Amino acid sequence: MDLATVNALSYEDFVDAFGNVVEKCPLVAAAVWSKRPFATLTALEAALGEFIDALPPSGILRCHPDLAGRDLRDGTLTRESSEEQAAAGMDALGSEEASRMSRLNEEYKARFGFPFVICARMNDKAAVLRQLSERRGNVREVEVTRGIEEVKKICRLRLHTLVLTDAPKL
Amino acid sequence: MDLATVNALSYEDFVDAFGNVVEKCPLVAAAVWSKRPFATLTALEAALGEFIDALPPSGILRCHPDLAGRDLRDGTLTRESSEEQAAAGMDALGSEEASRMSRLNEEYKARFGFPFVICARMNDKAAVLRQLSERRGNVREVEVTRGIEEVKKICRLRLHTLVLTDAPKL
Repeated sequence: MDLATVNALSYEDFVDAFGNVVEKCPLVAAAVWSKRPFATLTALEAALGEFIDALPPSGILRCHPDLAGRDLRDGTLTRESSEEQAAAGMDALGSEEASRMSRLNEEYKARFGFPFVICARMNDKAAVLRQLSERRGNVREVEVTRGIEEVKKICRLRLHTLVLTDAPKL
Repeated sequence: MDLATVNALSYEDFVDAFGNVVEKCPLVAAAVWSKRPFATLTALEAALGEFIDALPPSGILRCHPDLAGRDLRDGTLTRESSEEQAAAGMDALGSEEASRMSRLNEEYKARFGFPFVICARMNDKAAVLRQLSERRGNVREVEVTRGIEEVKKICRLRLHTLVLTDAPKL
């Protein structure tokens, strides 16, 4: 849809459309609806980002599933997350890769109290495993900040699949 | 489960168990997990209430479905909301009652920009219709406050179906 359509949506249709731009946090879209009209897609993205920053970061991160974890195995991922994890090859790990991913995820969660969050669409399988391995050695504050940066990247890409950009691509 | 079990839950199991004590806001449980251990069920309830108060109220309210609305007709209510709406008879309105409810819901939403929220388990069909009719005449600030009070009542009852109370009932 285009931005004029977005700005004309009722809160119900807005939350239906944008309720999962931040994983399992329809509250974000529900709150940001009050800020319409949005002059540009960038303005909508900024409003979402500002609201994300006002929420407790570890709470937002804990609403995210593990990569190649229980929800993927059980088929209980959100549609968006399912597509993103598939794009990074998380649904087709070899048994050794799957074990390694599982072990690193558990280590990461035990250390930080929230899951490893990364924008899967911007990374392939090797990059995800490498970053997970590296990032689990960070201090907590760094990972909180980094996790939220990744949430915003995920949000941005989800948004761009829903709203036409302001300027036509050349 | 008892409180010792609650306090021993991983964030994942905690969010699985309590993720919908505030409708479609797993963020609330996800954030409050950081505050464990909870000395009493009242302390858990207070932590949830405190976090609810820190969020934009209209955002929380907009995550709630209409009573006897589209989600009920489409079968897309959350399990908790479905049971609560049934308890208040919302799934068995006569055609005239259903029309009236639908009209009042639309008026309420057009006036306030969020849905009419009421703890359905504490009201029967007649009380819901009466309160909806009365409350739609309030000023917005009153309804924001009142709606959040109802969110907390709903939260409390959902919590009490999940956690054993501290003291045995006599």
